[in-house]
Amino acid sequence: MKFTINRDLLLMNLNNVNRALSTKAPMPILTGIKIEARDNCLFLTASNNEISIQASIKDRRLLKIEEEGIIVVPGKYFGEIIRKTDSKEIDFSVFEENIVKILADRSNFSLNALDKENYPFISFSDSENVIKMDAGNLRQIIRKTTFATSLSESRVILTGVSFNVEGRKLEVVATDSFRLAKKFMFFDTEYGVNVVIPSRSLDELNKILDDVETMVEIHFSPTKALFKYKNLLFQTRLIDGTYPNTSNLIPTDFLTSLRFNKSDLISAIERASLFATYDSANIIKLTIHSDKTVEIASTNNEIGAVKEEVIPLECSNAIDFQIAFSSKYLLEALKSFDSIEVILHFTGEIKPFIITGDYDVNLTQLILPVRVS
Amino acid sequence: MKFTINRDLLLMNLNNVNRALSTKAPMPILTGIKIEARDNCLFLTASNNEISIQASIKDRRLLKIEEEGIIVVPGKYFGEIIRKTDSKEIDFSVFEENIVKILADRSNFSLNALDKENYPFISFSDSENVIKMDAGNLRQIIRKTTFATSLSESRVILTGVSFNVEGRKLEVVATDSFRLAKKFMFFDTEYGVNVVIPSRSLDELNKILDDVETMVEIHFSPTKALFKYKNLLFQTRLIDGTYPNTSNLIPTDFLTSLRFNKSDLISAIERASLFATYDSANIIKLTIHSDKTVEIASTNNEIGAVKEEVIPLECSNAIDFQIAFSSKYLLEALKSFDSIEVILHFTGEIKPFIITGDYDVNLTQLILPVRVS
Repeated sequence: MKFTINRDLLLMNLNNVNRALSTKAPMPILTGIKIEARDNCLFLTASNNEISIQASIKDRRLLKIEEEGIIVVPGKYFGEIIRKTDSKEIDFSVFEENIVKILADRSNFSLNALDKENYPFISFSDSENVIKMDAGNLRQIIRKTTFATSLSESRVILTGVSFNVEGRKLEVVATDSFRLAKKFMFFDTEYGVNVVIPSRSLDELNKILDDVETMVEIHFSPTKALFKYKNLLFQTRLIDGTYPNTSNLIPTDFLTSLRFNKSDLISAIERASLFATYDSANIIKLTIHSDKTVEIASTNNEIGAVKEEVIPLECSNAIDFQIAFSSKYLLEALKSFDSIEVILHFTGEIKPFIITGDYDVNLTQLILPVRVS
Repeated sequence: MKFTINRDLLLMNLNNVNRALSTKAPMPILTGIKIEARDNCLFLTASNNEISIQASIKDRRLLKIEEEGIIVVPGKYFGEIIRKTDSKEIDFSVFEENIVKILADRSNFSLNALDKENYPFISFSDSENVIKMDAGNLRQIIRKTTFATSLSESRVILTGVSFNVEGRKLEVVATDSFRLAKKFMFFDTEYGVNVVIPSRSLDELNKILDDVETMVEIHFSPTKALFKYKNLLFQTRLIDGTYPNTSNLIPTDFLTSLRFNKSDLISAIERASLFATYDSANIIKLTIHSDKTVEIASTNNEIGAVKEEVIPLECSNAIDFQIAFSSKYLLEALKSFDSIEVILHFTGEIKPFIITGDYDVNLTQLILPVRVS
């Protein structure tokens, strides 16, 4: 096995593939990157059992394969070698079956390969059930939902994000049962998909989607989803089970709706929760006064108290109203909006409230309040 | 106690004073900042027993004291409140002896004060033994020496930096007994000083010295050094004991001296130690060949091996020579130089070698080699 490759091209692809590298190793072979040279193409593969990523490189000006072959190199060290090298080209060759020689200008690295016989077979297989969207839309979906998934493994299904396409409508839902993020999108063609994708996989995918206009093909099979993007294959396992029905959770009748400047509201909540942050519950109280002013407050017996006055841009109905909730949940929900102004819609003091934004037409964030004395 | 102050001015001073705040608390009162308003001046004081910092603010346009007083506020929370506030002015007042009210635009904070009776008396006292240098020189001294001090408390004296002024010559030395950094400086007047300053204190002081042209007055008393800089007093305890005599350690006769481009040498060593880094000793081998080429290499039986060829700009004496040492020590030493080119002077394969640079005329770095098979 022997090839010469442009250093920047190799590094860019390694940086993407490395996202699937296993760090802690129940399977030590998965700390390696599988490198395969065949048919004038170089394939780099990494997998951690949850996600698998493969990059294929076939630029004839920047890659010259002299001898085909397969080898598995320690991923972390191989990545660091290429990163620390500033030569334009990298010479890669294999000696004595398992010693990799890497030449770069005046640097000469020998790297012990891992046993390629141990590397698991990974099938990146197409499916007939395919949806297409541009990377920009997919990034939006990921950024606006994954934060609301559960971190606890006690209900595994809630650690994933539900993707449900019926007809032309994609509905994406994430919830940890205390808050919920829901985003719609409409396709030009009809599809049928109903899967739950691990939130961690989507967050890793998001880091790879650098060009918003490139189309992503998503192939769904019963246990896997395969994202095809540029020269990359990104495959994740799906979460088994039935996602809870959330269609009736979002209220539609409101006692009052308040419009705020988003960044002013975020600043006020950040200040109001300065002391609350150190309390495990992060609870703040929001009070609407009959003069349409809003007070956001928190108290920590040990440290002190904060009161923030916020003037809403609009208030549909001036009522005396008080509600308490996690400041962390509201901050994360608010930051998922691109709109400059957001609207908080309240249905009752111990009922869920929702957040919408003019510009984010297909996005709803919902938060459950807590009862406080 | 009651005053109004410009928010940016307060924050800038808090950021400086906070460097002395105790985080873990054998003395909980030291997690507080003492605020004292008197004589049209505001004093902010923090201390962690090792260093104490006091800022005095007396700008009449930006500070209005309505009522004098003393209070101790929780340092971390007070800092975060001011940082998160974007109002131009802060209103500070004390109610019921121990509740601090902070008003900033529409924000209203109540902060429980700490018991000021528990705050220790801290004397920032002048001495007759004073030296003066500009902040730029002091920063240089700190940056080029503190990294070579010992982290181990087994010989406490080596966790400090020795400052020794005899006549007009200041000699600053740091060593952990495996490497040594030595820097000279000459004054216009004669002084007499012989102290050891904790390395950690100097590193904190370094972060405060933002304006290289401002003069710093250093007052030495038997157990303390007081640095006066702008409106700040920075005081550190000294380390008790006699610093080892290092005057005979630095060799003056060399077998050969090699001149390198500093950044090329740093890159080569960083690559040569890529595998060594994960070995506790970080040992690399440097070999001079009789054709005046230099090889830097390391081997890790598990991972692999690296060989770097470096061509010195000059080599005073072409000999076959090999020496092994910690790559971490050489990298830290090299990075302390401002010179574009550095010279490595070798006296023997198991003897200390030194590094100098044309531009860093009064700086010598010394490293002890290790014996390897």
